[in-house]
Amino acid sequence: MDDEIPMKPASTLAQLEEDPELWARAVANGHLLAASRLMRYLDDRIPVAINVMKALFHQTGKAHIIGVTGSPGTGKSTLVDQLVAEARKREKTVGVVAVDPSSPFTEGAILGDRIRMKRHNVDPGVFIRSLATRGQLGGLSRSTHDIVDVMDAMGKDLVIVETVGVGQDEMDIVKLAHTNIIVQVPGMGDDVQAIKAGILEVGDIFVVNKSDLVGADRAVQDLEMMIHFKDQSSSDYTPPVIKAEANTGTGIGDLMDCVERHGQFIRGRNGAMIEKSRLRTRFQEILRQSLFEQTQDRLKKTNLGKNLMEKVENRLIDPYSAAEEVLSAKLY
Amino acid sequence: MDDEIPMKPASTLAQLEEDPELWARAVANGHLLAASRLMRYLDDRIPVAINVMKALFHQTGKAHIIGVTGSPGTGKSTLVDQLVAEARKREKTVGVVAVDPSSPFTEGAILGDRIRMKRHNVDPGVFIRSLATRGQLGGLSRSTHDIVDVMDAMGKDLVIVETVGVGQDEMDIVKLAHTNIIVQVPGMGDDVQAIKAGILEVGDIFVVNKSDLVGADRAVQDLEMMIHFKDQSSSDYTPPVIKAEANTGTGIGDLMDCVERHGQFIRGRNGAMIEKSRLRTRFQEILRQSLFEQTQDRLKKTNLGKNLMEKVENRLIDPYSAAEEVLSAKLY
Repeated sequence: MDDEIPMKPASTLAQLEEDPELWARAVANGHLLAASRLMRYLDDRIPVAINVMKALFHQTGKAHIIGVTGSPGTGKSTLVDQLVAEARKREKTVGVVAVDPSSPFTEGAILGDRIRMKRHNVDPGVFIRSLATRGQLGGLSRSTHDIVDVMDAMGKDLVIVETVGVGQDEMDIVKLAHTNIIVQVPGMGDDVQAIKAGILEVGDIFVVNKSDLVGADRAVQDLEMMIHFKDQSSSDYTPPVIKAEANTGTGIGDLMDCVERHGQFIRGRNGAMIEKSRLRTRFQEILRQSLFEQTQDRLKKTNLGKNLMEKVENRLIDPYSAAEEVLSAKLY
Repeated sequence: MDDEIPMKPASTLAQLEEDPELWARAVANGHLLAASRLMRYLDDRIPVAINVMKALFHQTGKAHIIGVTGSPGTGKSTLVDQLVAEARKREKTVGVVAVDPSSPFTEGAILGDRIRMKRHNVDPGVFIRSLATRGQLGGLSRSTHDIVDVMDAMGKDLVIVETVGVGQDEMDIVKLAHTNIIVQVPGMGDDVQAIKAGILEVGDIFVVNKSDLVGADRAVQDLEMMIHFKDQSSSDYTPPVIKAEANTGTGIGDLMDCVERHGQFIRGRNGAMIEKSRLRTRFQEILRQSLFEQTQDRLKKTNLGKNLMEKVENRLIDPYSAAEEVLSAKLY
């Protein structure tokens, strides 16, 4: 990056808002303040941020995006923390997006992950962002992908997305990762088995964490058997199952080896196809959100939205018919 | 229901498709085949189903909608099963919607819950439906609410929605319930504590299940303390914390008492406000989905969608700009 812009942050941030191209270049050059502000503006849906994203687009598509998915209690935050340390040992830069469950009413995020990872805070090769779900319908997945794109454009070699991975939104996040790590722990009962069956299809690497607990070998065997049954069909890639103890760092080197191997596999084989599918999903998601926002903006300029809402609230019209009235209104 | 329609199911189902009003009446009269087919058509987004929903709307708004939310491994399915049995003892009819995590690729649902609940299958006072997430963006929450409305219109006294409750979509489901039961188990580590903090705001009743396990009393105390801190502000209602063992049925009577008490509380106090908020959310959700579907239909009739998709896939245009092109195209 030899075209780095010398600037004092204070004067520049105001400048950036005038010039999306300049802002995009600052992000691509790794200016932390420029990147942080962009993320905040994206969260707050401030229009200029979209123009920066457009200008940044040609800088994206280089990072290896890794999903780390596991139920509460599987220790996946600690695992991510160890993965970051391992990646840094291997001289890779890392971005982390922690998708926190949070209340739709308080709109507050949980601080746990951020506190746990603070040992990386002083490392300029690591950028961590916690994402609260802001209570907006369907917004989680889109926001997450925005943040991933920004980190990608910043030049991070790896971008790790940590999620609980059971809802539809999380499944959409999972779809956008190149390599999905599924974290399990021994003996969590049959509900977990059910999750396992659903998530088997999306896992590229499986980790049995807390492998010092009773039942770890059994959990590994169960997973390997399920993968074997699923895999009989074809495929040149068989997902590995790794035992780990994130607390002590056991198994983390193995895990990172597997991540790198899977990265090579998809790049070699069907990398172009996967990349196209990712972009397609991203386009649909952005379109969906934009349509809703555009219509809401237009509704605000008329009384139609307010009137319909009141009618629905008072059961004078059903919500399906009300939606149809909006669709057929010439708001355009 | 004295205007019940005498009919042979085989001949009638064809008739129903011609006449949404007749279909709606059949559902309201409790015809199982009519209700099942409606749910399937809603899943498959077949247009006539929307007309039936419109006709059914004035039959909804009577059921007590109960959310049961808990992480995998908390035994919430067993708890729901016991709640159904208890409700039947109290001569209430029940609908159950089990929201299953499922693969976005196989589109298959997990059968576990259905098998577990099969003892209720022969009881005409119980209607159970498992919901797979069909891989469509943002569709889970909307489908769930459709099914809840159908069960409500069928005249079920209680409609229980079981969900893992950590994703955004599940949070939207939670918002639509009158009474939210949050299920926890003793000693699942600090990740669970984090979830707890997020979910505290939405819980009306807390259950510490598997209360024979070590740490149950501690878990109850922790929850009560958190509720106390949150509650200092105001409110006439303090969420109770109940110990239960769903496997043996211990605590289920208590739990149902609390459900009924909360039902009376919200009906008495701010029932109208809650109902308005539910309808508002429902309207927005339907509008959001309808806008996307309408635009997709219209895009199919032109080459614009296909062309833009190809450009995005080949990185010739960024997805934000592509979405803007759709928005500004005069498809209308």
